[in-house]
Amino acid sequence: MLINNKEWQTIWLDQSKKFVKVIDQTKLPHEFVIKDIKSSEEAAIAIKDMIIRGAPLIGVMGAYGLMLGVMEDPSDKNLKKTYQKLKSTRPTAVNLNWALNRIYEKVKIADINKRFSIAQEEAKLIEQEDINMCENIGINGLDLIQKIAKQKDNNEINILTHCNAGWLATVNWGTALAPIYKAHRSGIKLHVWVDETRPRNQGASLTAFELRHENIPHTVIADNAGGHLMQHNKVDLVIVGSDRTTIKGDVCNKIGTYLKALAAKANNIPFYAALPISTLDWDIYDGVKNIPIEARSEEEVTHISGLNSNGLIEKIRLVHKDCKAFNPAFDVTPNELVTGLITERGICKANENSIKKLYLE
Amino acid sequence: MLINNKEWQTIWLDQSKKFVKVIDQTKLPHEFVIKDIKSSEEAAIAIKDMIIRGAPLIGVMGAYGLMLGVMEDPSDKNLKKTYQKLKSTRPTAVNLNWALNRIYEKVKIADINKRFSIAQEEAKLIEQEDINMCENIGINGLDLIQKIAKQKDNNEINILTHCNAGWLATVNWGTALAPIYKAHRSGIKLHVWVDETRPRNQGASLTAFELRHENIPHTVIADNAGGHLMQHNKVDLVIVGSDRTTIKGDVCNKIGTYLKALAAKANNIPFYAALPISTLDWDIYDGVKNIPIEARSEEEVTHISGLNSNGLIEKIRLVHKDCKAFNPAFDVTPNELVTGLITERGICKANENSIKKLYLE
Repeated sequence: MLINNKEWQTIWLDQSKKFVKVIDQTKLPHEFVIKDIKSSEEAAIAIKDMIIRGAPLIGVMGAYGLMLGVMEDPSDKNLKKTYQKLKSTRPTAVNLNWALNRIYEKVKIADINKRFSIAQEEAKLIEQEDINMCENIGINGLDLIQKIAKQKDNNEINILTHCNAGWLATVNWGTALAPIYKAHRSGIKLHVWVDETRPRNQGASLTAFELRHENIPHTVIADNAGGHLMQHNKVDLVIVGSDRTTIKGDVCNKIGTYLKALAAKANNIPFYAALPISTLDWDIYDGVKNIPIEARSEEEVTHISGLNSNGLIEKIRLVHKDCKAFNPAFDVTPNELVTGLITERGICKANENSIKKLYLE
Repeated sequence: MLINNKEWQTIWLDQSKKFVKVIDQTKLPHEFVIKDIKSSEEAAIAIKDMIIRGAPLIGVMGAYGLMLGVMEDPSDKNLKKTYQKLKSTRPTAVNLNWALNRIYEKVKIADINKRFSIAQEEAKLIEQEDINMCENIGINGLDLIQKIAKQKDNNEINILTHCNAGWLATVNWGTALAPIYKAHRSGIKLHVWVDETRPRNQGASLTAFELRHENIPHTVIADNAGGHLMQHNKVDLVIVGSDRTTIKGDVCNKIGTYLKALAAKANNIPFYAALPISTLDWDIYDGVKNIPIEARSEEEVTHISGLNSNGLIEKIRLVHKDCKAFNPAFDVTPNELVTGLITERGICKANENSIKKLYLE
């Protein structure tokens, strides 16, 4: 998608085909920096330190990370070691798992001397599939937005989104934002309410960055404001991403998503999660009970970064030095609060039958 | 209440009886600064710039502000002018209105040369009444917490609170935190989840400051985290304040309160608002429809202050310079989400009959 009127992806194989390049998302929106990822260790760090983030992109980074591991040492032992190292970087991310398994299964049965090229082909395939999937999510979501536009006599549609499930969370297009991009490019009048998404502020930093460069009207709000806006008919549709979706349609997404889903339900506002089928976890039924939720560093709550008056990125402390914080990274929205799931195969209701039907079609 | 093991109030008349002193809350938790308020203009600024904040304390500040106005010029014309100047500082604060009216009505019928002493006596009376009211809210809320402690076999009780409705929001004791202080001092084991409360972070700054100095275990969380904690039985009780309460029991409080009330309801967790009767607005029935919500400066969302690595308070920008924000300061929680109201006269249900009964008793 566009940055300064030029098309970009979040990750791509360098021309040398020996390493990958990524947009360093920790620097956005203040600085636009490209970073080389030259080893499996750097790939693991890129995932862990959120240089890249977002479920689909983490999957692609994992795939390239395993490719880099095979380049370093194609032995069975190192393959397994690298696989496990990468897998452990983000325990909640189900399609990191999925992408790693895909490379791992292909590579482990191949001859040692073919392993690198096989890993590379598969990683490139995962990358291209991700782009296609996201674009299809956009096309399917566009249908939904067109219907709402019709109901509103083509007046401006207000869409609220939480966190960043935009193209910066994928290779291109995004998940929750893909329908918005498709709708905007097809001429539908939109305005997006962007939850800042504490503690890491991916909304204020990344979603606002994406929308600005695509020239889509948007307004950043504190995470606390969404319920009030919904009470006062300022939101026509909520679209969020999903890091993991259970077979009954529970949606595990960035912390705070659940609160917006409750408010949407209470105010009869459609609440959709946009996701590639790969985020479906077929082994889990009840997401609230059974999805493990990663607790991230307290420092994400106690400190925050931004631009100081000299134009430099600076981290400041928000609380007293002795103050304790707790930082669960995700929450689970039970399926009864989810109007539907927008996937690359179409839109379905958030229940087991509908999901299975969509998957098997 | 305690700061560094010494008892403080948020506001008090200087020994000279010519001006008032306040704790400058914009500097907390990083610096503890006492500020002189020597004119009605300074009083208006103190309210507007949130040097002092919290519905009850704003009322007391308004009262002293009008006293300072009378000191400057006791004429009818200036009395009215100062009254209106102070009233306009915070349109949503119903007991700023109430306190100003009380001074105004007493003063306007008095002789010119007695006006200052009458205004002073009345302001001191409002101050003392506020302390008594808050302490009684604490005593009434203690009952509730004792019952929950019994149900939990005296295991630790987890209470979630939003924003700062502690003693820093009043003259002393606080509203939502008064029951917590009474419970802690009576030996009940407590832990408090403190919503950081974006955009102004009154939870992280002020509530955490209060609890630390009173030695009450507490943990700061992003506003997004409360729903997840409630889903997982980590919250036994929610207590918030109220800036304005309608006659049917709708609660207008800091933006984001409504989202916590929805989550409490969905998870069968008692949700109480603690408030002095003076925050009741007898003229408004439906709060969602009829309470005007103040939109504050965008900069509260786009910028944030904290301590930099040199230990200095610094303001940083969180978003791109061209990014727009919207900043509604309050929201309204409809009465069906409110388990009850803790007042200085007792606890009642959030409906017209119960409120009237309590008031008329």
